[in-house]
Amino acid sequence: MGDIPLFGMLDILGTFAFGLSGATVAIRKELDLFGILVLAAAVGVAGGTMRDILLGDLPPESLRDTRLLLVACSAGLAAFFLGSRLEALKRPVMLLDAAGLGVFAVSGCHKALEHGLDPLAAVLLGVMTGVGGGALRDIMSAEIPRVLREDVYAAAALAGAAVYAACHWAGLPQVPSVSGAVLLTFALRVASERFGWKLPRAPRS
Amino acid sequence: MGDIPLFGMLDILGTFAFGLSGATVAIRKELDLFGILVLAAAVGVAGGTMRDILLGDLPPESLRDTRLLLVACSAGLAAFFLGSRLEALKRPVMLLDAAGLGVFAVSGCHKALEHGLDPLAAVLLGVMTGVGGGALRDIMSAEIPRVLREDVYAAAALAGAAVYAACHWAGLPQVPSVSGAVLLTFALRVASERFGWKLPRAPRS
Amino acid sequence: MGDIPLFGMLDILGTFAFGLSGATVAIRKELDLFGILVLAAAVGVAGGTMRDILLGDLPPESLRDTRLLLVACSAGLAAFFLGSRLEALKRPVMLLDAAGLGVFAVSGCHKALEHGLDPLAAVLLGVMTGVGGGALRDIMSAEIPRVLREDVYAAAALAGAAVYAACHWAGLPQVPSVSGAVLLTFALRVASERFGWKLPRAPRS
Repeated sequence: MGDIPLFGMLDILGTFAFGLSGATVAIRKELDLFGILVLAAAVGVAGGTMRDILLGDLPPESLRDTRLLLVACSAGLAAFFLGSRLEALKRPVMLLDAAGLGVFAVSGCHKALEHGLDPLAAVLLGVMTGVGGGALRDIMSAEIPRVLREDVYAAAALAGAAVYAACHWAGLPQVPSVSGAVLLTFALRVASERFGWKLPRAPRS
Repeated sequence: MGDIPLFGMLDILGTFAFGLSGATVAIRKELDLFGILVLAAAVGVAGGTMRDILLGDLPPESLRDTRLLLVACSAGLAAFFLGSRLEALKRPVMLLDAAGLGVFAVSGCHKALEHGLDPLAAVLLGVMTGVGGGALRDIMSAEIPRVLREDVYAAAALAGAAVYAACHWAGLPQVPSVSGAVLLTFALRVASERFGWKLPRAPRS
Repeated sequence: MGDIPLFGMLDILGTFAFGLSGATVAIRKELDLFGILVLAAAVGVAGGTMRDILLGDLPPESLRDTRLLLVACSAGLAAFFLGSRLEALKRPVMLLDAAGLGVFAVSGCHKALEHGLDPLAAVLLGVMTGVGGGALRDIMSAEIPRVLREDVYAAAALAGAAVYAACHWAGLPQVPSVSGAVLLTFALRVASERFGWKLPRAPRS
């Protein structure tokens, strides 16, 4: 997304946020410094890397632009030094994570459309880019991915990616489309957390 | 496998079967509607997507032909509305799953041979295509993949893929080769379930 | 790494070692013969396959050169017949695993540099090649990857890959660079196991 400067900055913010969330889980599982850095790096760049693998754009951005890896590792280091005080920062971390979700969902959708994918496939690739890092984090912690359990997480990413795809189809200018779509995901995610929104479950006997 | 019409239909059937198996696990784990759809889609297209990544045929068929994603999501929706009544359908779901296993194992092997892989590598890619979706389903549910625990699952996929590779090498016509190989996997899988066939385990002290 | 004959042999040794480690876990989890072979093959070739996917060098070496798969499967068969006696071989298996870690970390770094990646990205790809197989083994066993929990595992891979990248940058001849870097990883890993070296953990409240 080097063509949109706004995106460059958001991308780095999102990578930092996801790196932090990976490191937080690593600390809770009492991993050592190295495990923290590995999980921070993996979670920070996994979504974008899956996106680039599926688009055949290899080597992926995460290996071509090492700033992203450095940002994710910095998040890991920051978490290591904050240690247990990180728990007190739960709220800002959640806000960063919601911002990262929006940025990656929209940037994934954007890149997929530029590679000529269908809108439906592009929206789904956007959702995967947004939720991929967190899913890997949970799989590596031997837990059911939170994206599957948590209400309005993938759904928020879907909304942002779908709105961006619609704006793109309608030929609207890029900066407002991107900003609006990212904000939508962010707002949905934060509001659902704040108001405890739930999605329906299948009825059980 | 767009070149064999029979395969197009079988592919869709297999995707539906695997989507259903993903959704069934999601419902058992009490995931919400969105989690069910995500797991159904992931399980439905994962095997074919891994196959296309390894062959370098990117973006993968699952992103180029969105019918497959729609079919997998329909399976998720169907499972959501059936809810706990799905348990009563255990047997037809198992039959569908066995059919999907055969279809994907043979189609993976076929595509690998067309990309010029060795027969041995093609057979293994076929097995991976067949069992990949189910393995992802179990990993995302934080369980040991059933393909590793269950007797005669990957082995049935292997038999079908190997027979197809042999027919291909012998230059036999495609439609009977494909049908025979798919049926072999299907029959082995169903029979092993029915008669409780076991494979040997390593001796323990 | 076909261009360095020394590497060809080491690669096969590493694949055998990782295949054995996959099979050992499979036997402990009481999987059947087929599960053992699948896990041995997956663990043996996973690191190199991830490396080739990320470099866009597809189909990956593991599918083009089926010797690697055969070696990994032989390791699975050997483990199956050794059965519980394998526990007595814990020490040689650990040495083989340390050798495999070094070989794959350095070969991954080498191949990434040849594909024109940055040294930092190349070192990280080397680490991933080294630890990828073991991580997959643990994820498929529904456990937190040992690479995250175990002190001085990824760190040893990092040291070897970084030293190799430095030698490559300095233009040193290949055979001593490769040998030195592989030996460094091997020695660090074995020494850390022997002397119980620990890396720091984040402070907890």
